[in-house]
Amino acid sequence: MTRKIVILTEGHTNPHTAKTAASVIRYRTDEVVAVLDSTQRGVTSQALLGVGGGIPVVGSLEEAPSADTLLIGIAPRGGRIPDAWRPVILKAITRGMNIVSGLHDFISDDAEFAEAARQRGVTIHDVRKNRERDIAQRPGFRQGCVRIHTVGHDCSVGKMVTAIELQRGLSAAGHNAKFVATGQTGIMIEGDGCPLDCVVSDFINGAAEKLVLANQQHDFLLIEGQGSLFHPSYSAVTLGILHGTLPDGLVLCYEAGRTQVAAMEHVPLPSLTELRRIYETVAGIMHPCRAIGIAVNSRRLSATEADDECHRASDELGLPACDVFRHGADVLVQAVLRLREEIVR
Amino acid sequence: MTRKIVILTEGHTNPHTAKTAASVIRYRTDEVVAVLDSTQRGVTSQALLGVGGGIPVVGSLEEAPSADTLLIGIAPRGGRIPDAWRPVILKAITRGMNIVSGLHDFISDDAEFAEAARQRGVTIHDVRKNRERDIAQRPGFRQGCVRIHTVGHDCSVGKMVTAIELQRGLSAAGHNAKFVATGQTGIMIEGDGCPLDCVVSDFINGAAEKLVLANQQHDFLLIEGQGSLFHPSYSAVTLGILHGTLPDGLVLCYEAGRTQVAAMEHVPLPSLTELRRIYETVAGIMHPCRAIGIAVNSRRLSATEADDECHRASDELGLPACDVFRHGADVLVQAVLRLREEIVR
Repeated sequence: MTRKIVILTEGHTNPHTAKTAASVIRYRTDEVVAVLDSTQRGVTSQALLGVGGGIPVVGSLEEAPSADTLLIGIAPRGGRIPDAWRPVILKAITRGMNIVSGLHDFISDDAEFAEAARQRGVTIHDVRKNRERDIAQRPGFRQGCVRIHTVGHDCSVGKMVTAIELQRGLSAAGHNAKFVATGQTGIMIEGDGCPLDCVVSDFINGAAEKLVLANQQHDFLLIEGQGSLFHPSYSAVTLGILHGTLPDGLVLCYEAGRTQVAAMEHVPLPSLTELRRIYETVAGIMHPCRAIGIAVNSRRLSATEADDECHRASDELGLPACDVFRHGADVLVQAVLRLREEIVR
Repeated sequence: MTRKIVILTEGHTNPHTAKTAASVIRYRTDEVVAVLDSTQRGVTSQALLGVGGGIPVVGSLEEAPSADTLLIGIAPRGGRIPDAWRPVILKAITRGMNIVSGLHDFISDDAEFAEAARQRGVTIHDVRKNRERDIAQRPGFRQGCVRIHTVGHDCSVGKMVTAIELQRGLSAAGHNAKFVATGQTGIMIEGDGCPLDCVVSDFINGAAEKLVLANQQHDFLLIEGQGSLFHPSYSAVTLGILHGTLPDGLVLCYEAGRTQVAAMEHVPLPSLTELRRIYETVAGIMHPCRAIGIAVNSRRLSATEADDECHRASDELGLPACDVFRHGADVLVQAVLRLREEIVR
């Protein structure tokens, strides 16, 4: 059954803060009926988020009478519910809409929301809620299951979209490939996965390992990365996924022109060469693994500049490079297939 | 007020499984009145755990009538409450004893235990319970606060005791030094700290950073390590502490003769040289940091073998090495003081 989703981004309808919204619109376009932001009423999703075509930005829930689901479309630092959003969420519940949220603050744990949902008989799906309690056991994975992991120099550089575009490219070429979602947005898009950044830290490697065990019947797993080994706040999450899923190949994701950690201007980002060295070293502690390609996020560049940047990156590391939105993911798909040739006999 | 503690280790009174018990007995000797293990009734703590002198192992709570606190003395993999222990915990509560537990399964969240505690007016202290929700911000630490972190090749090799012995050595020499506890046992001993392995993974770096911010008035912080970058299950926890606390110096801890990860015999452990290389590389992503000494756990060796092992380790890395129990921590204390000379001007 197709949902009819309103995505709440009140006051934050831009591609960075509302990256959950933008990605759900990109990959679940048919299910989205409106974006809710009273400060931007009347414009289109395309104009504000760069995706979604004519999907309207509305000023209130009343303007989307057919909608049956309210999806929280931002991922603020720290994951708390902005106070200004409470009346909207409550109104949606009262109207009989289901709620989908990826915040660290669980809406279903809020007494007022929980009681309202119970009375109205609607579902609150807190995507990040989990009871992961298994430590990694290193049981060994199926030999024929090639694991590709997208890692980055920072947050919000395209690790999720690169994994999805790779999966789509492999599937389109007739291969049995699965996108493995590790974060709230990926789970909203794929419909399964595990919110690894919200797992108790003793169990993150174990939860990541279980994601592979549950999906290793596929020939290719495209495992979404989170955070970055270079991010002061989230490097532990990044490592838990790297050491729990034991990738065979890495796709290095970076945004051209970004030289400092986002919102931490005193923390510099590494060169591409250093990025590769650190990820290969740290992954290699547990399993033979190497970088096989580069996903360049060139959103700040012109088309010509983007091509130049991809050539520069490719020359620096001797690896194929592309912007998956501008150029398609084909050169990376080919790199994955070459890796499979090598490691699966 | 001094507590009168019975430590529950039923069926697991050995130094490895009951490492919480052994360490609380070592560093809180005056508060421990008995160890409870009906399978070992009549022997001494010293005989089974190698510490505690004549502290008796009793077969039931009735044999320790003066006790006012029951402390859970094991840290099983996964942190669950063994079923066989439920009646003992309930009897302790009913008798009016407070409960101290470091398990991942919170005793205060168990309906039966919680209700019994409420009725009897006793306190359940789940040491691992926390609501950490702040991401690391990298605010900069006080220049004069030297941060030393104990890291290891595996779990249970002496990272906590090395940090404590270093703190005691520095304090005895008149320096202002603080042991920073990052795990359940350390917190039980020190009375403060943060159970970082039980923090939601998005916030572990932040919680570690807050531990430094809360203690940086001291001139030396001896920060307890957890897990290992080489441990398949716990490497994310290890990294969160490394990147949250930004140590200036590392003490490398290892157990002589251990060549595989404990309880994971198919996972090899690294050489000392590799251990140093990886930790310095990974710590160095965020802050200049180097290994300054080696803490050898020589429990399986004779005194002569232990001396030889320390010389071998010292020669391999060109760093001072000792077993802090056999030799005292003095050579490591001197290494910390030399590092301070260098970095604090």
